[in-house]
Amino acid sequence: MQNPVELILAKREGKTLSPADIAAFITGFLEGSIPEYQMSALLMAIFFQGLNPEEIAALTQSYIRSGQTIAFPAELIVADKHSTGGVGDKISLMLAPIAASLGLSVPMISGRGLGHTGGTLDKLESIPGFRTQYGPDEFKALVEKHGCALVGQSEELVPADKRIYSLRDVTATVESPGLITASIMSKKIAEGAEHLVIDLKIGSGAFMPDLDRARELAELLVSTGASFGQKVRVVFSNMNSPLGLAVGNALEMVEAIEYLKGNPLADTCTLTTELTSRLLLSGGLAQSETQAVEMIKAAVSGGRALAKLEEIIIAQGGDPRALEDYSLLGTSSVKIPILAETAGWVQAIDARAIGYALVRIKAGRMKLTDTLDYGAGALLIPKVGDFLEAGEPLGEVHANDPAQAEEVARLIRAAYTLSPESVPREDLILDSI
Amino acid sequence: MQNPVELILAKREGKTLSPADIAAFITGFLEGSIPEYQMSALLMAIFFQGLNPEEIAALTQSYIRSGQTIAFPAELIVADKHSTGGVGDKISLMLAPIAASLGLSVPMISGRGLGHTGGTLDKLESIPGFRTQYGPDEFKALVEKHGCALVGQSEELVPADKRIYSLRDVTATVESPGLITASIMSKKIAEGAEHLVIDLKIGSGAFMPDLDRARELAELLVSTGASFGQKVRVVFSNMNSPLGLAVGNALEMVEAIEYLKGNPLADTCTLTTELTSRLLLSGGLAQSETQAVEMIKAAVSGGRALAKLEEIIIAQGGDPRALEDYSLLGTSSVKIPILAETAGWVQAIDARAIGYALVRIKAGRMKLTDTLDYGAGALLIPKVGDFLEAGEPLGEVHANDPAQAEEVARLIRAAYTLSPESVPREDLILDSI
Repeated sequence: MQNPVELILAKREGKTLSPADIAAFITGFLEGSIPEYQMSALLMAIFFQGLNPEEIAALTQSYIRSGQTIAFPAELIVADKHSTGGVGDKISLMLAPIAASLGLSVPMISGRGLGHTGGTLDKLESIPGFRTQYGPDEFKALVEKHGCALVGQSEELVPADKRIYSLRDVTATVESPGLITASIMSKKIAEGAEHLVIDLKIGSGAFMPDLDRARELAELLVSTGASFGQKVRVVFSNMNSPLGLAVGNALEMVEAIEYLKGNPLADTCTLTTELTSRLLLSGGLAQSETQAVEMIKAAVSGGRALAKLEEIIIAQGGDPRALEDYSLLGTSSVKIPILAETAGWVQAIDARAIGYALVRIKAGRMKLTDTLDYGAGALLIPKVGDFLEAGEPLGEVHANDPAQAEEVARLIRAAYTLSPESVPREDLILDSI
Repeated sequence: MQNPVELILAKREGKTLSPADIAAFITGFLEGSIPEYQMSALLMAIFFQGLNPEEIAALTQSYIRSGQTIAFPAELIVADKHSTGGVGDKISLMLAPIAASLGLSVPMISGRGLGHTGGTLDKLESIPGFRTQYGPDEFKALVEKHGCALVGQSEELVPADKRIYSLRDVTATVESPGLITASIMSKKIAEGAEHLVIDLKIGSGAFMPDLDRARELAELLVSTGASFGQKVRVVFSNMNSPLGLAVGNALEMVEAIEYLKGNPLADTCTLTTELTSRLLLSGGLAQSETQAVEMIKAAVSGGRALAKLEEIIIAQGGDPRALEDYSLLGTSSVKIPILAETAGWVQAIDARAIGYALVRIKAGRMKLTDTLDYGAGALLIPKVGDFLEAGEPLGEVHANDPAQAEEVARLIRAAYTLSPESVPREDLILDSI
């Protein structure tokens, strides 16, 4: 390898780094010969100069090679979903058992909530006893036996991404399409998924401000997957309104369970169906979208998806009684309505501000070491374009701290901009590739 | 202060940082609460987004406040020179004693050679016993007593610059006009200089490739000086040819002493006179350029400048016999001529390549911990536009390692591009402000 300063300089000047150079830089960083200050300088240079598809593939490869990989038996159709993160996004909790009940194998590695976005792991851990940390071998065995496992990232898989992501987080180098692509794809390739659907969220509650920027990222995700033989589909979904009704760990778990019991909410149902059907089509289990949608409906109405969730909960040490007794997931001593102060149409919802407000009652966290209150959260009814009367409840805060609950209700109310004139409703699915 | 990530993000997005934010970031870094990886990310963001004059002044102020400052009595006219670094640049060795002999007080803080450029401190240390490390109080006393001191940067003055420069050096963030300005100006303001002339070098042996880029930097240097009440003049000089005849520590010391004995070389004399006269004019000791030039000539021809150099050498513990017995400065057992292979006009000289070639015989160094051979170096005769016959010597290598000397002679010969067609000579002084 050239010396690290020369590589940083080359990227700073917009040159292309060779796969060997990228591999050597990552290896040197993991081994300690390249210090964090050189890695962070390179990351910032990459933020400004970008990475081309070959560089992204090389970086993804370096991430994957930094740890173990999982290879499933050829007869399994291995599929997974990734979401770029939103507020109220509990889709994985439904998609995984539905897909597994229909014959897909779903090795789902999820993350924790941070800042304004929640995390699937936290929601699952509201189930008493539910274990999310497994080594690669145990994880693989769970998927092979039950068709699905819902776990956290282990130290053994793509440790390079884990270390570099931590550094990006504290050096303002997260929002780089090339770095985002390598981070997402390395995990999804290392876990052995052949089919991947990505829920790329756009809007006030997401990090992607517009569809054009999202399309650029989507193309990188698809082409990077392709270079590793993975089939990637991307759904662009609207994150201008929080998804579904519930935001908060136990509340979202309840919403997901209710869905699998046959009581879905419109937008949650639309997005879950859209994403799951992409995987059924990609994996060849459905021949048409109509067929895929029917299969999904049948899996829910016939109780197979709920049974699969129960099977997963039991397999991962969780208490299945939580599927009936929701108080086991978490409770809240305080429930405060959030009332509209004036009448009007919902023009904008600052979903990010809602996420941050909920951190105050521990429905989310600012640092990974912060503790959570699983029972805390909010139910939020209207979407952009809905009409509210003055004094009509737009939702309620669930909390265990009365003083904080009032403040959170105030902050959430302030996150809704009402217009005296009619505002059009927005599509949830903006596009897909 | 905002949290460090937010400041890095703000600069990454091209926003202006407040003086308070800049001060807090620098203080946090020096105190250890902001790690090197955040500083290097900020430096790279600054490389891409730049700093405006107010930000540069704030950064310069933060650097200055990180350590002690020197304040000379009001009756002294305190002046200094800074060079942005070149090959064969021994101007300080003549300018300082000439200026001091004419009544200016010159608190000159110099650096060491690194990479292809030499350093004034190394050249001075070829004088046996010459001491260059002094604390601020001793340094001030030397200047007050002798009108001049030639020392290295102490730990007490602008420690922030020292630490941040080291980090820039290994993170490819050196070439930023804002960072360069704060680094240069903080030292020159902290040392108490009221009048400053900057030799801004342009060409193959300098880091500035063209006059336009140099002008931008010069304006930042002048405006930053002005915001601290310092008068700054800038001379743009040509670094397409090495300066003078000698490159190498003892050889350059000899060239400087010979100048002060009345045997100057044309280009060395032109640049020394140009720079020194700017200081005499700025300090009010000369009323016209003609008068300044006459004063300089008289200081040399009357022996006052040489006597001043002798006084400085004695004051700083050096052996003044070296002014007569050059063998005390360093010797070379091998002298190898460098012969032109074909006839032609010198079209280009890769002064940078010459500097790097000379590192092999320890006339320079790649790391600050590398040892030097003071006697090693080269004498280089032709400038761009000069004609050479085939077989005519273009210079000679002085070394103490015969095998390496041959290789260096070969590399230096290769650094000269000869043209069969006539090439115009170039001006040494390109412009000034």
